[in-house]
Amino acid sequence: MARGKTMEVGETCPMNGGNGPYSYSQNSHYQRQAADAAKTMIMDSILDKLDIQNLPSNTLKIADFGCSVGANTLQAVQNIIETTKHMHKTLQLQQTLEFQVFFNDLTGNDFNTLFTTLPTPGEYFAAGVPGSFHSRLFPNATLNIAHSSYSLHWLSRVPEEVMDRESPTWNKGKVHYTKNLKVFEAYSAQFKRDMEGFFNARAQEIVGGGLLLLLLPGCQDGFLPCETSVSMQYDLFGSCLMDMVNIGMVSEEKVDSFNLPMYLTSPMEFRELIEANGCFIIEIMENFNPYEDEDLPDFHVLATQFRAATEGLTSEHFGIKSREIMDELYNRFADKMADNTHLFDMKNMKEFIIFACLKRKNVHFNAEKHQN
Amino acid sequence: MARGKTMEVGETCPMNGGNGPYSYSQNSHYQRQAADAAKTMIMDSILDKLDIQNLPSNTLKIADFGCSVGANTLQAVQNIIETTKHMHKTLQLQQTLEFQVFFNDLTGNDFNTLFTTLPTPGEYFAAGVPGSFHSRLFPNATLNIAHSSYSLHWLSRVPEEVMDRESPTWNKGKVHYTKNLKVFEAYSAQFKRDMEGFFNARAQEIVGGGLLLLLLPGCQDGFLPCETSVSMQYDLFGSCLMDMVNIGMVSEEKVDSFNLPMYLTSPMEFRELIEANGCFIIEIMENFNPYEDEDLPDFHVLATQFRAATEGLTSEHFGIKSREIMDELYNRFADKMADNTHLFDMKNMKEFIIFACLKRKNVHFNAEKHQN
Repeated sequence: MARGKTMEVGETCPMNGGNGPYSYSQNSHYQRQAADAAKTMIMDSILDKLDIQNLPSNTLKIADFGCSVGANTLQAVQNIIETTKHMHKTLQLQQTLEFQVFFNDLTGNDFNTLFTTLPTPGEYFAAGVPGSFHSRLFPNATLNIAHSSYSLHWLSRVPEEVMDRESPTWNKGKVHYTKNLKVFEAYSAQFKRDMEGFFNARAQEIVGGGLLLLLLPGCQDGFLPCETSVSMQYDLFGSCLMDMVNIGMVSEEKVDSFNLPMYLTSPMEFRELIEANGCFIIEIMENFNPYEDEDLPDFHVLATQFRAATEGLTSEHFGIKSREIMDELYNRFADKMADNTHLFDMKNMKEFIIFACLKRKNVHFNAEKHQN
Repeated sequence: MARGKTMEVGETCPMNGGNGPYSYSQNSHYQRQAADAAKTMIMDSILDKLDIQNLPSNTLKIADFGCSVGANTLQAVQNIIETTKHMHKTLQLQQTLEFQVFFNDLTGNDFNTLFTTLPTPGEYFAAGVPGSFHSRLFPNATLNIAHSSYSLHWLSRVPEEVMDRESPTWNKGKVHYTKNLKVFEAYSAQFKRDMEGFFNARAQEIVGGGLLLLLLPGCQDGFLPCETSVSMQYDLFGSCLMDMVNIGMVSEEKVDSFNLPMYLTSPMEFRELIEANGCFIIEIMENFNPYEDEDLPDFHVLATQFRAATEGLTSEHFGIKSREIMDELYNRFADKMADNTHLFDMKNMKEFIIFACLKRKNVHFNAEKHQN
């Protein structure tokens, strides 16, 4: 791997639903690979940072934000529950502990499919919560552990100015920020607004002392995200669309107005956003690259993963209903990646995965802080 | 009416999903009519019986059991919330009150459609909970108000013995209990088991002092449920299937093994089941007939409603994938009802709707009880 494998797809809707060959649930094993690598970090965070002896009730409430429909969300939840049960047993705590798990994603997510994959009743009490995680989804102070994996890099919307023909920020013929700094800044500003919404909402929903565990693709400090392999891959995808414009299969105007709503933050920027919110203590913040192998990826597999995450967006924007045209587009993308193997060279990689374990400050903490 | 209008369809899965002409969401306005009639009862129950001044938290948690996908479930929830807000305002309570609403139905329910019909964020925090309400779905003591409307008459399964060719209880050529008392008793025993499961689960989930508001079709005390119009209508439906056996469209063996998993309890039986559970006080128990008009119903509309509720069951059991055969079946049913208008004569009606407002006993209550 990795060579940006994880960065192509996010876990927010609209992912392809169901279980078909292009479904997200069948095409998210790179996320799974990354999640497996993150498993230890998450387990250690809970062991070290969760104050299980002072839970406000006998129910541990867990929420997964941007769950999509795949096995990854279930595995992450399972890891959290197993770790908590282990602590509970080790500490020989007397009270019975029950688990309630909320799976969140946009309303368009295929919750019906997700619900068919839940474990047998008894493991935990499950619920699906539709809606954008950039705003409130839960009552005040009701979550103990919130988790989000490969979702925060999805923006709530494409920044308006990049679609404005009259603006210098107009992103003509491109589908993502490349070397136009103004486009990048517009994306960055949108990410900032989105994270403000996310942290404000979670600050209200998570109990004092509760944990917020985040995994998201990021870019090294000191580089522009447009210098990452994944950003260059998006550029290749854009050029496939332009190729299809040239042979009359796609409208140029549609390409001009199409932009991928994804953004790679950096550790420094992400830290600043958490600190600006002010409601969370950064307990742990690390970067890692979960991929050991250095072989080139299978580009058709990679294109299929990207398709699972973006086909909904693409077909809606371009009004494409024909499977043949979609096949053409994503096959071209696979071929173009195979022609640009330098993008997958570890030496050029500027991206990695950011892991953060945040703890919700509580009144007691604030009082202490003000006294000092 | 009612002429059994409400008794043909329940709100448990598998209802037809989506919004098409045969979908449950488009064909549940008789339930709606009944729910409107029950609105006052539910509002009065909350006003009289909910101890809003002693809520254990600032979040009122409401669950609707057997929600299906229609507007009825949303309206019922809205009524509960508006009443509670009104009380909160009238009593000039200081604490902020938030609402979290859980919509429950079987895993096969079309939650995707339900989620698209939720009110704008801010009204309440919504979640979907897949699973059978005959067992646990929520953590201990976490619900303040539980509601179920036109769902409890759906059995968790057809009693085994009515499908056993070797048993005297075998329900050959029929799809419901008619005059065979053994078949009726098997259904009644299954209903008893189901209600034990339902009340045991809710007793654990509802906080002390919390309310359980139930609406379900029932039959007058002193009559057998097979003497109701609705039961006779089921018999007509069975005879339509037998007619289709005779012209070779449906297998007789399949009709012999097909039984509608619905049961109409009586107020006396229902009260006994609640008392046998022992965890709830019966605050209110009433019967009502919400229909004022005495015109004969439109039998094709009635058949379409019945189709919305039973097509999933029927097509699965008979392995029918052809829409034409389904059209044939439900058209025959409409015609046969039109030929038997006496079933819709108010004078012959033995069924009505049972409304019950139950309150979860709490430790304090039990202590008092034991002292006296």
